[in-house]
Amino acid sequence: MSQSLAVIVLAAGKGTRMKSDLHKVLHPIAGHPMLLHLLGSIGAVGVARTVIVAGDRREQIEAALAGTGSEVVVQEPQLGTAHAALQAKAALADFSGLVLVCFGDVPFLAASTVRRLCDALSSGAKVAVLGFRPDDTAAYGRIIADHDGTVRKMVEHKDASQEERAVNLCNSGVIVAHSDDMWRLLEAVGNDNAAGEYYLPDVATNAIAEGARVVVVETDEAEVMGINSRAELAEAEARWQQRRRRQAMDDGASLVAPETVWFAWDTKLGRDVLVEPNVVFGPGVSVADGVKIRGFCHIEGARLATGVEVGPYARLRPGAVLEEKAKVGNFVEVKKATMGKGAKANHLAYIGDAEVGAGANIGAGTITCNYDGYFKYKTVIGERAFIGSNSALVAPVKIGADAIVAAGSAVTRDVMDGELRIVRGEQLVKPGWADRFHDAMKKKKAEKQG
Amino acid sequence: MSQSLAVIVLAAGKGTRMKSDLHKVLHPIAGHPMLLHLLGSIGAVGVARTVIVAGDRREQIEAALAGTGSEVVVQEPQLGTAHAALQAKAALADFSGLVLVCFGDVPFLAASTVRRLCDALSSGAKVAVLGFRPDDTAAYGRIIADHDGTVRKMVEHKDASQEERAVNLCNSGVIVAHSDDMWRLLEAVGNDNAAGEYYLPDVATNAIAEGARVVVVETDEAEVMGINSRAELAEAEARWQQRRRRQAMDDGASLVAPETVWFAWDTKLGRDVLVEPNVVFGPGVSVADGVKIRGFCHIEGARLATGVEVGPYARLRPGAVLEEKAKVGNFVEVKKATMGKGAKANHLAYIGDAEVGAGANIGAGTITCNYDGYFKYKTVIGERAFIGSNSALVAPVKIGADAIVAAGSAVTRDVMDGELRIVRGEQLVKPGWADRFHDAMKKKKAEKQG
Amino acid sequence: MSQSLAVIVLAAGKGTRMKSDLHKVLHPIAGHPMLLHLLGSIGAVGVARTVIVAGDRREQIEAALAGTGSEVVVQEPQLGTAHAALQAKAALADFSGLVLVCFGDVPFLAASTVRRLCDALSSGAKVAVLGFRPDDTAAYGRIIADHDGTVRKMVEHKDASQEERAVNLCNSGVIVAHSDDMWRLLEAVGNDNAAGEYYLPDVATNAIAEGARVVVVETDEAEVMGINSRAELAEAEARWQQRRRRQAMDDGASLVAPETVWFAWDTKLGRDVLVEPNVVFGPGVSVADGVKIRGFCHIEGARLATGVEVGPYARLRPGAVLEEKAKVGNFVEVKKATMGKGAKANHLAYIGDAEVGAGANIGAGTITCNYDGYFKYKTVIGERAFIGSNSALVAPVKIGADAIVAAGSAVTRDVMDGELRIVRGEQLVKPGWADRFHDAMKKKKAEKQG
Repeated sequence: MSQSLAVIVLAAGKGTRMKSDLHKVLHPIAGHPMLLHLLGSIGAVGVARTVIVAGDRREQIEAALAGTGSEVVVQEPQLGTAHAALQAKAALADFSGLVLVCFGDVPFLAASTVRRLCDALSSGAKVAVLGFRPDDTAAYGRIIADHDGTVRKMVEHKDASQEERAVNLCNSGVIVAHSDDMWRLLEAVGNDNAAGEYYLPDVATNAIAEGARVVVVETDEAEVMGINSRAELAEAEARWQQRRRRQAMDDGASLVAPETVWFAWDTKLGRDVLVEPNVVFGPGVSVADGVKIRGFCHIEGARLATGVEVGPYARLRPGAVLEEKAKVGNFVEVKKATMGKGAKANHLAYIGDAEVGAGANIGAGTITCNYDGYFKYKTVIGERAFIGSNSALVAPVKIGADAIVAAGSAVTRDVMDGELRIVRGEQLVKPGWADRFHDAMKKKKAEKQG
Repeated sequence: MSQSLAVIVLAAGKGTRMKSDLHKVLHPIAGHPMLLHLLGSIGAVGVARTVIVAGDRREQIEAALAGTGSEVVVQEPQLGTAHAALQAKAALADFSGLVLVCFGDVPFLAASTVRRLCDALSSGAKVAVLGFRPDDTAAYGRIIADHDGTVRKMVEHKDASQEERAVNLCNSGVIVAHSDDMWRLLEAVGNDNAAGEYYLPDVATNAIAEGARVVVVETDEAEVMGINSRAELAEAEARWQQRRRRQAMDDGASLVAPETVWFAWDTKLGRDVLVEPNVVFGPGVSVADGVKIRGFCHIEGARLATGVEVGPYARLRPGAVLEEKAKVGNFVEVKKATMGKGAKANHLAYIGDAEVGAGANIGAGTITCNYDGYFKYKTVIGERAFIGSNSALVAPVKIGADAIVAAGSAVTRDVMDGELRIVRGEQLVKPGWADRFHDAMKKKKAEKQG
Repeated sequence: MSQSLAVIVLAAGKGTRMKSDLHKVLHPIAGHPMLLHLLGSIGAVGVARTVIVAGDRREQIEAALAGTGSEVVVQEPQLGTAHAALQAKAALADFSGLVLVCFGDVPFLAASTVRRLCDALSSGAKVAVLGFRPDDTAAYGRIIADHDGTVRKMVEHKDASQEERAVNLCNSGVIVAHSDDMWRLLEAVGNDNAAGEYYLPDVATNAIAEGARVVVVETDEAEVMGINSRAELAEAEARWQQRRRRQAMDDGASLVAPETVWFAWDTKLGRDVLVEPNVVFGPGVSVADGVKIRGFCHIEGARLATGVEVGPYARLRPGAVLEEKAKVGNFVEVKKATMGKGAKANHLAYIGDAEVGAGANIGAGTITCNYDGYFKYKTVIGERAFIGSNSALVAPVKIGADAIVAAGSAVTRDVMDGELRIVRGEQLVKPGWADRFHDAMKKKKAEKQG
């Protein structure tokens, strides 16, 4: 775009229908706050400045935006959408260029749409508004426009004539104008209406009254649907997931049951990846080509290299790095740990704060004891080491290359390369004891029941 | 309602299409027999007496109804629905008031509908029948009625004229009348038809023939759909779940993927509860505000207090009580045990028949050994105690406050407050042993393959 | 059928849209390559000879077909579908009878349809083609036919007149003729078209030109949908699963949430089986009457006898055999092992390469250590034996009948019948040690933070 762009995001609504202590625009979709979905999406057009207009709980928004360069201003009291947008004026006092006003609870606005909206101004229009044609026009405000997109009138549903209500072009509320125009038109908005509020669409109405050209750009309903309840949040999540699943399959991943795979906003998936039913991806996951993810896996913040196989029931937590052909099997949790090339932990294990060497074999029931109640410590396991089942490796501890830890050992001191370590009491044998125990207990049980 | 109400539930059908040894009306929806759904729902209007008319397997019904005050009578032989209803007469000999006849395999009949049906009699009608307008009128009997609801004729589908078949008001079978009228009208029903059966709708037909007014009350198809096969049972379950999920979201819970959360009939869920994909609630669960339930949890008979976090892959069984901010993590089972305030069991543990004190930390792989093959015993863990990983606590046993159990210990005797308990053999070191073992086994492997 | 049948399966397409290193026709549906679905389905009519016409990656197809008696021929270069079919001529030189041409990526072709198609030739027709009437006729070739099924013309979509395009009878491509006719007609096909390819429908066109009768047999769209992308593969899987779930319910199994149960192509399920939400069946599973499968189970290659209960979170792998009333509980993996009548492994265990006797009780956290890094060994557990929690049974090892292994024991030598085996170090008690540790660590933590 030839002119620089500032974005004002309105986020001062109370979101009462969410019944939540969390600000509405911070509720996540695919593990990412809806406000950040919006900023990420429209950020692709190149945004010079972003100002969020918040009301209640602005500190939650400030925390979520930390480090993004966005500013937060406060609307207090809340006198309508035009009044809200105007609160950003001071913060943008030194800005000259296009100003877009959009909504924190309408997170799927696309960069391409923002671009079309801005481009619409280059034809001499002073204001561009975003319209859509919903299946059910409900109580939306209508945009009365010519075939070339020139807007004749913006009308609220309740003020619309029957003829106007028959028009199915509705107003999304999203609007763009040059900063000079935007501030002037916003300031001219009045509150002479039933609610006594300053309404944003009056920016367009006032422009038309000035004799300026206002144009409408159209987009799909799905892009401008607002989220006002948990049910609408779930619908937005479902729509997002459906698009993402389709994309994964188009890119060459096999999803046996696509509707049971949940991606995070930033999941990276290679080609010829197999994903069985019921897999949940949290944020920060990257999966290379040829990886096999079996059913019931839960994967967050992990990197899976080529040929890796995980699950069923593998839980990979942040910092899990699985090198080429590593295997993590059922009921195994890996956290902040590297599994070297071809290393295996196939059953019932906890591998946390660890480095596991290439080709090492972690027996069933192995636990890296990484925590003493106060600090975390690291376990280092050498290449081709064999950790017998039900072992506890008490960190900090180092197991050498090719070393063997006998089953059931609690290892508290380092094991050298090629060494065997056994930590085990004597095999105490009591012949006939069990038979006598059974007799005694059966008698006791009979007495209790008798 | 001004008059007292008796309910006759017909449940003598064989349910052949279920192909089950369990009586059809006892197949569960949301973990609760469909018959109890029905009784619970209509019980809300205040029901003085309930009589179930059973046929085969009445002992199953009697067992399910134990303690509810409902009576079971038997229809033998089974000569039609009017004959079935009449079997309740003796049991209700001392009852005077309204009598409702409904069906054990139509479990979603609403209290509000029953109330409307009973109220319809106050306008001077002698009988009220429940009608519905299905999408597909199929082979349902039709109700020919005036605009004011006065029924002119009840007609079976096979006997209906083309004009009558064009009527889409169908008969649900549910019917209400005063006991005096009901018994008289039921006794007047004949069996002069192809099947030689006594049909319940003839109660209305006979009332009309007497010159009495019969009225129809209408309801939604969803409320009166019968369940005759496992597929219809699954559909009923799906409809119930859909309504419950929507209710949970409206009440302020976030369901990331609502279609993958299964509630039980009595699940209680607070506000700002997060439920990730794939969570199953069994009966008896109550979840307070602000609880986070991650993916793949299975929760039955458990109480989760404010700020608790469970899963992924947590299994909470009956008697699990999680106090404020307690955490139960992956592959952890808790049964008949209390986790105190802030207590944690994050990985691969079994906590059964136990009391875990506030702030205690249960290491990965810890097992409370609560069973000796004959009896169950209790484990008591003190506040802030630290149980090292892979420990076995052999109950009955008590671990003191602030006590520490070393990793890999099998503890069979009580540990005092502030004490350290280690149960561990000597660290036996065999330098070079593993290297020699590897050499020998590689040779053996080569021989086997060679 | 009176004449013997040879089947030519075209499978030389590159399947580019799959973006896969695996041949398109080998991508699995319900755990079984789509090509084998096709061969299994039409095999039911009795097929004398099967020839697969492959292109790239024919070695993958040969490997998949090993032992099935099917032959693979290669089409190189690939000059169209008629040219492909003709590549099978040499392999079928000694065959006389009907020849059916079908497609490796159209796997749901039913035996009954093949039979109807072949029977259609008995009325004197020389060629029979398979047509269908899709919801969206898209770019399919049309079949112009009389009411009696006599085909007048086969026309490609791009060559069709408007009137012809209005016909909704489309060509599936599947075709049958006697071998003598098939080879002659295939050889007469020319490539005088825009793409310079030899098209299979020209077989019918040429027959008509010869004055022979060609007939069309109709079938459902679902049966002839081709699979060209991962998304279409997922849709085919979904359709297959939906049919199978319905069948399971009709046969008397209760699926609480049918849409969350995934069957394999060969799953056998009895009557009064309960399947909770989220269960995945891999190949080779047979489940007897009255089995209860709780949520989140993953079951492959296993046999479950009457009255067995598994899950939630049970993982049964190939070779798992659960005898009558055995129980396998949460976070338990069973592989190549028999659980005797009434034997139990209820929590967090790994039972691999084992025989567990009737009535034995496997404690929580028990591991059979079946692998030493080189070979696998067997564990045999006697009837009614009691294995204490967190035990490691180091195979090869035998635990006698009625024997008891104490909790936390690593058992390396056989335990006799009725014997008690304890492997445990001394209970080392350090009074006050934990209190001193807590004091020291709190100080250290404070220093680090200070």
